[in-house]
Amino acid sequence: MNRIEASYLIETPFEVEQACQVMAGEQSCGTFTRLAAETDDFRKRHAARVESIELLDSVDAPSLPMPTRPQPPGTRYQRARVRLSWPLENLGPSLSTLMATLAGNLYELKEFSGLRLLDVSLPHAFAEACPGPQFGIDGTRRLSGVDQGPLIGTIIKPSVGLSPDATAEVVKELLDGGIDFIKDDELQANGPHCPFTERVDAIMPLVLEHEQLTGRKVMVAFNITGEIDEMRRHHDHVLAAGGSCVMVALNAVGLAGVSHLRRHCELPIHGHRAGWGMFSREPLLGMDFAAWQTFWRLAGVDHLHVNGLANKFSESDDSVAASARACLTPLFEPPGPAHTVMPVFSSNQTACQAIDTCRAMGGRSDMIVTAGGGIMAHPGGIAAGVRSLRQAYDAAARGISLADHARDHGELAQALETFCP
Amino acid sequence: MNRIEASYLIETPFEVEQACQVMAGEQSCGTFTRLAAETDDFRKRHAARVESIELLDSVDAPSLPMPTRPQPPGTRYQRARVRLSWPLENLGPSLSTLMATLAGNLYELKEFSGLRLLDVSLPHAFAEACPGPQFGIDGTRRLSGVDQGPLIGTIIKPSVGLSPDATAEVVKELLDGGIDFIKDDELQANGPHCPFTERVDAIMPLVLEHEQLTGRKVMVAFNITGEIDEMRRHHDHVLAAGGSCVMVALNAVGLAGVSHLRRHCELPIHGHRAGWGMFSREPLLGMDFAAWQTFWRLAGVDHLHVNGLANKFSESDDSVAASARACLTPLFEPPGPAHTVMPVFSSNQTACQAIDTCRAMGGRSDMIVTAGGGIMAHPGGIAAGVRSLRQAYDAAARGISLADHARDHGELAQALETFCP
Repeated sequence: MNRIEASYLIETPFEVEQACQVMAGEQSCGTFTRLAAETDDFRKRHAARVESIELLDSVDAPSLPMPTRPQPPGTRYQRARVRLSWPLENLGPSLSTLMATLAGNLYELKEFSGLRLLDVSLPHAFAEACPGPQFGIDGTRRLSGVDQGPLIGTIIKPSVGLSPDATAEVVKELLDGGIDFIKDDELQANGPHCPFTERVDAIMPLVLEHEQLTGRKVMVAFNITGEIDEMRRHHDHVLAAGGSCVMVALNAVGLAGVSHLRRHCELPIHGHRAGWGMFSREPLLGMDFAAWQTFWRLAGVDHLHVNGLANKFSESDDSVAASARACLTPLFEPPGPAHTVMPVFSSNQTACQAIDTCRAMGGRSDMIVTAGGGIMAHPGGIAAGVRSLRQAYDAAARGISLADHARDHGELAQALETFCP
Repeated sequence: MNRIEASYLIETPFEVEQACQVMAGEQSCGTFTRLAAETDDFRKRHAARVESIELLDSVDAPSLPMPTRPQPPGTRYQRARVRLSWPLENLGPSLSTLMATLAGNLYELKEFSGLRLLDVSLPHAFAEACPGPQFGIDGTRRLSGVDQGPLIGTIIKPSVGLSPDATAEVVKELLDGGIDFIKDDELQANGPHCPFTERVDAIMPLVLEHEQLTGRKVMVAFNITGEIDEMRRHHDHVLAAGGSCVMVALNAVGLAGVSHLRRHCELPIHGHRAGWGMFSREPLLGMDFAAWQTFWRLAGVDHLHVNGLANKFSESDDSVAASARACLTPLFEPPGPAHTVMPVFSSNQTACQAIDTCRAMGGRSDMIVTAGGGIMAHPGGIAAGVRSLRQAYDAAARGISLADHARDHGELAQALETFCP
């Protein structure tokens, strides 16, 4: 395949085929009116093509306001799923120009009262040009010493405000509790009250000491989000201190920054999606997670946040499940790389969601589950909280109900009683 | 001022004060339930504060779907303009962590059926830590030799598909036509059909030759959007070839990439906003241009696209005017830097919009006006098209009506007849 393909959900008061041609024109040759240079051969070589149009329902009000082209009362707004394609020749395997092409000016076209990028399929040239995940699922398991089942993790709280020493105290408790994974909050990067290098220096000796005792290095995702040179420097500091993961707020840093970091990086990149709601909460705007994650996997992240089932945010369980499955779906057909990454579940996670989360993962357990209250507020303490999550996911993997499994697993029983009324 | 402030437009079915406290909690200490570590003193030092709430209208349906918390029929959704503040101490003057804080997870909170970032005010520490524009308005005027009035420019069309030589032929015609500014399309970066360095090498000798004849170097914004090392290499190539501007698709590259480029860069950065519709088209989601441009000015762009009046897209004239004014509004109070940048008008621009555009700019003419058809489709040819725009903006600056000015300015008269029915 030498064409880039993308599907969109669109909504338009105009003739759908015509509106799609405007979209294809805007994102390739650039003018709907043909210029002299645009011979038939030129168009054949460079124009984007409308590959298919599947009409959906129509609605009586536009999903997005159309101030410059209000329609008469009674107008219907037709929705459709459309597939466009572009010649690779137009942009080459450039991730940022791919973004500007598939998710650029077209959102502003006045032909549309709704436009959302759904998914992206790419020629193999992108697999060759883009770094892709360096560690992925296998590398994360190897570095964390968790051979099977989810990595059970947590986020340091309060999110922001703890000094390096106070952070280290929290980490110490978590290590003692038998946790697999710890992460900084996305608000905690390199603020004056908790300078990055001091935080690493306070935490890593504890992690290494714990490794000496247990043989397992707990993975700590240090938030290196920042300027390019700062991210490289902080990555190097984590590496030198014996750490095994760095975290980046992807939307805040951007594609070029993450891809650059990946080429320099010797540790897994934990991809935080802060700001994702902006891209996704209006169903007729932005993009699906399936499209968004394609860019970041190509740029080289190893873990991707997908929210959690029964979360404290506004996202539905179906949406969370689709995001998790997207992370595990190969980006390229063999012999191209699959570039699968580990989905990270978070937000209100306790033992209660284990069965449904396992089902959402299609039975796979290649995930990181981060729980706050589900661990910290467990009546038996942190260690019991961690164990309750492991027991729950173990039951889920073996097809045993949580209630049955709780009969001879006390921490799970306590968790069910406390968290799953 | 040692706090970061931001205003939001929100919509919620809950008690507004309570919903805002959730928002402030999520984006600072991180938990609505107080943890043991969160003493009063800790909260005072690190919690985000709700500074003010201005109630607006209420509506009977949520602007954004709330799948996880549907409300009973009859629920009202209250809108409000709210102002939050954060201690600088939490994050330090970090642009990317600022983005993760002000425009992060809060968009997903299920308390809100609408949430939009409106504007941002920052402590002076950000002026010291972030590069800001290197050339801005004065530098752009100096390099382009346009002392007053708008820079009259165009975008090379077809957007994508021309070879380097074919692109150079278009540039030759534009130079002969007396244009001030030429730019690549955002779809044209470094594709196989038009490799970047070959394009620069085909174009720059013409620009330099034209400079020899006229004493003015026409500014060509070469689109260097790409990976970090590629952008640096391409910038260096433009610089070595005698060029005077580089262009970046900001949303596609990201904050860290642009800020890094700026620190390396010796040329003005022309900031393209492709993808902006995603952030802005739903009025109760995303962010206003006033907020968005704050980040990019701090990162160091010199020009920012603002669309154009009577454009071919879906944006209203009021919104375009507000964006243009935002570019000219100082980012910091004196003695801090103003960091003003040149707004770039585009999309369906002809002589017709001159009076209204001047008014939108508050009478200032520090702008780039790019026109396609308004130049190319002028009945007198390219040179006449360029002159018609200059005449129109000259009339606007002098408070003369276009019709009056057209009496003794033939190219303007032709433009009015052709483009402004």
